[in-house]
Amino acid sequence: MKLEVKIILKKGISDPEGAQTKKALNLLGFKSVKDVSTIKVFKIQLEQSDKEKAVEEAREMCKKLLANPVIHEYFISVLEE
Amino acid sequence: MKLEVKIILKKGISDPEGAQTKKALNLLGFKSVKDVSTIKVFKIQLEQSDKEKAVEEAREMCKKLLANPVIHEYFISVLEE
Repeated sequence: MKLEVKIILKKGISDPEGAQTKKALNLLGFKSVKDVSTIKVFKIQLEQSDKEKAVEEAREMCKKLLANPVIHEYFISVLEE
Repeated sequence: MKLEVKIILKKGISDPEGAQTKKALNLLGFKSVKDVSTIKVFKIQLEQSDKEKAVEEAREMCKKLLANPVIHEYFISVLEE
């Protein structure tokens, strides 16, 4: 099974990478860029045929490694069964 | 207009972050994880009402800053007009 895990900054948490990217784009002449935010996506190939168990496992992975609960939200979706 | 730019490693290019994440997940007990790959996503708020122009601008941004043409592919999609 293939899962996609999106790691997104919570609202109100500053995104320095996004802010710097915006600045750099503006400096390069892209004046119409008003905001940039960044998202990290992990595509995970799992040996697990049960969909619910796979999502539950991915949730555990987020808690233990992939996301920082203080600043991140995460969204898990199944890409292929 | 809000655009999403996905930066993905080309086929055959190694993904050290993905590989390390897989290793770490395996070590944490997630033995069913067979592969992990990483994707970077930029959400860009543009002051541009013309869809085609916006996508063209985003393409230029990828060429000039966001992506490395040697190792990356990029995909641009319009989220909100």
